[in-house]
Amino acid sequence: MSILVVGSVAFDSIQTQSGSVDHCLGGAATHFALAASYFTDVRVIAVVGKDFTAEHEAVFTRRGIDTRGIEHADGLSFHWTGSYVSSLNEAETLGTDLNVFQTFSPKIPEAYRDSEYLFLANIDPVLQARVRSQMPQVRMVCGDTMNYWIADHAANLASVLRELDVLLINDGEVRMLAGDRNLVLAAEKVLTMGPKTLIVKHGEYGATAFFGQHSFSSGVRALHPFRAPALPLAEVVDPTGAGDSFAGGFYGYLASQPELTPAVFRTAMFYGGVMGSFAVERFGTERLQNVTREEIDERFRLFKEISHLEYANT
Amino acid sequence: MSILVVGSVAFDSIQTQSGSVDHCLGGAATHFALAASYFTDVRVIAVVGKDFTAEHEAVFTRRGIDTRGIEHADGLSFHWTGSYVSSLNEAETLGTDLNVFQTFSPKIPEAYRDSEYLFLANIDPVLQARVRSQMPQVRMVCGDTMNYWIADHAANLASVLRELDVLLINDGEVRMLAGDRNLVLAAEKVLTMGPKTLIVKHGEYGATAFFGQHSFSSGVRALHPFRAPALPLAEVVDPTGAGDSFAGGFYGYLASQPELTPAVFRTAMFYGGVMGSFAVERFGTERLQNVTREEIDERFRLFKEISHLEYANT
Repeated sequence: MSILVVGSVAFDSIQTQSGSVDHCLGGAATHFALAASYFTDVRVIAVVGKDFTAEHEAVFTRRGIDTRGIEHADGLSFHWTGSYVSSLNEAETLGTDLNVFQTFSPKIPEAYRDSEYLFLANIDPVLQARVRSQMPQVRMVCGDTMNYWIADHAANLASVLRELDVLLINDGEVRMLAGDRNLVLAAEKVLTMGPKTLIVKHGEYGATAFFGQHSFSSGVRALHPFRAPALPLAEVVDPTGAGDSFAGGFYGYLASQPELTPAVFRTAMFYGGVMGSFAVERFGTERLQNVTREEIDERFRLFKEISHLEYANT
Repeated sequence: MSILVVGSVAFDSIQTQSGSVDHCLGGAATHFALAASYFTDVRVIAVVGKDFTAEHEAVFTRRGIDTRGIEHADGLSFHWTGSYVSSLNEAETLGTDLNVFQTFSPKIPEAYRDSEYLFLANIDPVLQARVRSQMPQVRMVCGDTMNYWIADHAANLASVLRELDVLLINDGEVRMLAGDRNLVLAAEKVLTMGPKTLIVKHGEYGATAFFGQHSFSSGVRALHPFRAPALPLAEVVDPTGAGDSFAGGFYGYLASQPELTPAVFRTAMFYGGVMGSFAVERFGTERLQNVTREEIDERFRLFKEISHLEYANT
């Protein structure tokens, strides 16, 4: 089934301990769409500038991603400059040039209206809400946000949270949103704000899903959280987009399944980790453009091997 | 089979967000021995002062722990004062009164000589080495250490590391010992220092085992690390001794098994997590004194449920 994603398609200039790149294709919607494209059909709503060429668009279309919702505006594309030189766990933002994104007003092409899964990548909650309200018939809504919106746009964000099936954020954001240092208590509080299910991303330690009463449509209850591992990596070339790639793998797998069961949800979290682990192996989206289905399956088996009691060699 | 543990038996005065306790029974050897006692026979070598009463000793003997190696010296027992008020992840040490521990010279009772498993809890590496050299016939040696010994007693620690089958330390200690910020590279470097296997404790995120060429006696090779989860807890009353309880559950289970296979090692890591999760539910050793085998088995099942793809409700 089709996923509609709204978010940033941008250029990133990044420094890490492994080197640096200037103006490489990035943005939350880009990483998400590429990761999800290995599992299901993906449609993108975003805005780009004159610096977004046919070659950039081909990165999407080669993966079968529908780009008819990418609006081409006068001016330059959103450009982010960041550094991971002092820590791979957290980016230091050196510059944010919103450019054409500043006046972005998402428009949904008629051909996108039948999308069954909606992903609201990390953008202004006002825009997230606007897209969501135009897609009342979707089967499922999953969303991301960040500390900036939590701190300074709380009321707008609260409206979006009420509409979400799954919220996907990191440890610090959960604690900040709930105002509680304990992850379990913070998660319980966030689940009262609207999301039926909360996925907390722990970076190199994996991710935890916290379930509510209505996480599964069939009335099945998951009584306990679920922890998915991350792959210990000897080299993280560029962490940019790891969370969005996790979201793409997770949601892409979900959308490819006929029913949302606890087993499907767990498997989706593993695929999230798998796609996140590929994303960080190269700068920008390089690895997500070229990974094969066989590599994805092989890494999924590896994720199982590093986390399950019964496996090979036992 | 029997585990011999050498380490501190002490009194702790602790403040956490849940309250405070004054001079409650603690110490690395205490937490370790209680946790391991649910799986196998345990013998303790430590020193205590006049403030260590028959009632304190009964905490050990009620669990069947052999206390003949606990030396009673003139003076007061080791006393640690710490606070977790600002962070549950790291203790702020407010006071360390070594007392009788200052002149501790471990003596191994004749009755302990046939112990097959040795655990060197976090004490001066000179003492760890002395005990190890007096137990040349042991089947397996597992050890702990901390930042203080890594920073200021590197040469003495290096001698101990060369003798270890398993080293059990936390994230920060691995990175400090190896001088490398990447966990995988740091772990590989630590494995060249002596330990056949390294377990890295991640606190609330679980633990990761890194295996070397000789982790398993049968010649079986584990090609990838193994990640065990921790249980997300709504209340951590007192984190003191969580790591030692993990070590006790882990090593106690290992010592109870006839052979060290990858499957046994994985299961042992889960039992480590299980015992650590009980330890933090109450102040001091209260929970470790009173947990039942049924509760341990039930929680083991829970650890599997929160981490395995195929489980109930699927």
